[in-house]
Amino acid sequence: MPTNTDFEMPERILLGPGPSMVHPRVLRAMTQPLVGHLDPQFLRLMTETQELLRYVFQTENELTIPISGTGSAGMESGLCNFIEPGDTVVIGVHGFFGNRLCDIAARYGATVRRLDKAWGDVFSPDEIEAELKKQKVKLVGLVHAETSTGALQPMTQMSEVAHRHGALLLVDCVTSLGGVPVEIDEWDVDIAYSGTQKCLGCPPGLAPLTVGERARDVIRERKTSVRNWYLDLTMIERYWGDERTYHHTAPISMNYALFEALRQVKEEGLETRFARHRRHAEMLWDMLEELGLELHVPLENRLPQLTTVRVPQGIDDGAVRRQLLNEYNIEIAGGLGELAGKVWRIGLMGYSSREENIRLLAAALKEVMAAH
Amino acid sequence: MPTNTDFEMPERILLGPGPSMVHPRVLRAMTQPLVGHLDPQFLRLMTETQELLRYVFQTENELTIPISGTGSAGMESGLCNFIEPGDTVVIGVHGFFGNRLCDIAARYGATVRRLDKAWGDVFSPDEIEAELKKQKVKLVGLVHAETSTGALQPMTQMSEVAHRHGALLLVDCVTSLGGVPVEIDEWDVDIAYSGTQKCLGCPPGLAPLTVGERARDVIRERKTSVRNWYLDLTMIERYWGDERTYHHTAPISMNYALFEALRQVKEEGLETRFARHRRHAEMLWDMLEELGLELHVPLENRLPQLTTVRVPQGIDDGAVRRQLLNEYNIEIAGGLGELAGKVWRIGLMGYSSREENIRLLAAALKEVMAAH
Repeated sequence: MPTNTDFEMPERILLGPGPSMVHPRVLRAMTQPLVGHLDPQFLRLMTETQELLRYVFQTENELTIPISGTGSAGMESGLCNFIEPGDTVVIGVHGFFGNRLCDIAARYGATVRRLDKAWGDVFSPDEIEAELKKQKVKLVGLVHAETSTGALQPMTQMSEVAHRHGALLLVDCVTSLGGVPVEIDEWDVDIAYSGTQKCLGCPPGLAPLTVGERARDVIRERKTSVRNWYLDLTMIERYWGDERTYHHTAPISMNYALFEALRQVKEEGLETRFARHRRHAEMLWDMLEELGLELHVPLENRLPQLTTVRVPQGIDDGAVRRQLLNEYNIEIAGGLGELAGKVWRIGLMGYSSREENIRLLAAALKEVMAAH
Repeated sequence: MPTNTDFEMPERILLGPGPSMVHPRVLRAMTQPLVGHLDPQFLRLMTETQELLRYVFQTENELTIPISGTGSAGMESGLCNFIEPGDTVVIGVHGFFGNRLCDIAARYGATVRRLDKAWGDVFSPDEIEAELKKQKVKLVGLVHAETSTGALQPMTQMSEVAHRHGALLLVDCVTSLGGVPVEIDEWDVDIAYSGTQKCLGCPPGLAPLTVGERARDVIRERKTSVRNWYLDLTMIERYWGDERTYHHTAPISMNYALFEALRQVKEEGLETRFARHRRHAEMLWDMLEELGLELHVPLENRLPQLTTVRVPQGIDDGAVRRQLLNEYNIEIAGGLGELAGKVWRIGLMGYSSREENIRLLAAALKEVMAAH
């Protein structure tokens, strides 16, 4: 075991599904001295972080906070606070993370009605409504940007459909937030969560969450306590609200990083940031097609920040990725679940979304593919 | 909202119950570039971190890992993986965190039999055994170092008592690990968890956890799935074990910090580290008694890393703490729960446990008390 030696990690070009690369300014924020989780300066940082999170979520929701865990903890908090045993939920499953929503919801005693579609497809409001007509549903869960497929689920009319049938709308924005428009208030989404390590350009460790008043009422009217202590919003909101009651010790340094990453998002501006992600994605797509590769998702539903490209016949998926990592320091990812072995996943998220990274990947991929 | 300005937090002397101060070397570790959570270099770091965690826990337990949340997530993972609805647990409650154990256990469907003692007292093995004789118990939970009272719970004979009655022994080591001996194998403890932000000298954000074979068998024999997805060890152990199956994205930078903090613990050596905590605690106690202050916990059960001192009659608890923070940059904490307003809590943990901090606190406290 190495001791007394400098601790160094390699400089990777992170072009996978996250974590994405992090700007040095954000890394430096974590070297600021620790303060207590009830220090007035930290409380001020919390308030400012909430304002910045409202900006990126495009919402006025008071309950907009970072959950003290990675994106999946955000997903769990988006479910466990609203589900009571016996509730029915409808989950749209068109990829790996839809499956995860079903798994988690079931653990909290929900009857899960899953709508399945091919991985890479998206749902129409009519498809969701048809299911809602069948029974009383508490919550509809959709994945906005499926990190496993690279498809963007349109949100038009989704809240009208859910609300017409008395259901809450929960949206997974782990990969979308900061990379494509996420308009919580405009779309009238009740619950949304994200992760810090994708398009927000921050290390993994926190999960931004926003909860509207309709959903908060559902929490207030619970008949049973939330089964999950760490993610129980009835307690967490007292720490992030005016009371400032201690719940758990906030991950201080991670909150520094998130604050600084959000400031960078604000400085760039959401529209400029979305345009950057789009422009670089188009460069990538052109480059991949020039190499004769086929993209998995049709253009109209394709995510700019995460591209799935089909592994050509006869090419060893894992060998290509290992060579990219070992010889070019570039990380791209393989497929998950149904798409394992069938696609590569190339992310251009946050600080990773830069022209030089695409040019480097193009050169590397061309060489590696020629050698296989 | 400030943008385009440098982000700076004040340099506090953190002498509360945690977070404690963090050595610059540990802060710097977090500025190392991000790598993916399945990067071979990160997998190697995980393996080395596990070895270092086994060193501080003094255990050979294979399942020894950092949970991706703060200490309370460690507590919840120590309960939710072992409890099934209808199980009976016995919890020793002699402070705030014993209460929390009861709260969490109940959420997972346990029948909780709580043993209450005055805050600051400790339990004898006979007191635990008397309760175990009454019914079949799945798990006994004890708090080793009660952060709310400053008392150290002796562990002698506790596992014999629990095991004689077929119960698992769970021990909360949030504040003890790295500051006083924690001998998991010697004491035959089945499940123990901690936090990074106390005596390990790392920012908050991870919860070291160790689980012995007896407890792993209990997981293997579960009839129901673990109700908590994020903390489900049946999935987490596949990421930390040989399979390396993705569960959630690990908080990469936090793991860098923990690795570096643990290396520092190893370099100092556990015995030297415990002696340092003890030596500085004795300096503090002498200093407090010279100021005419009364310590809450008798010497034989007193924690070196966290001292509770009674707020003198006629002194405004909050005003003193505010003045220490605002004028001297020193954080100490007030009491929690039953001890709110009655004690101050002074921590000398990890990198905060230094002679200069005690001298500074002595001078500051003398001036502030004289002014009140």
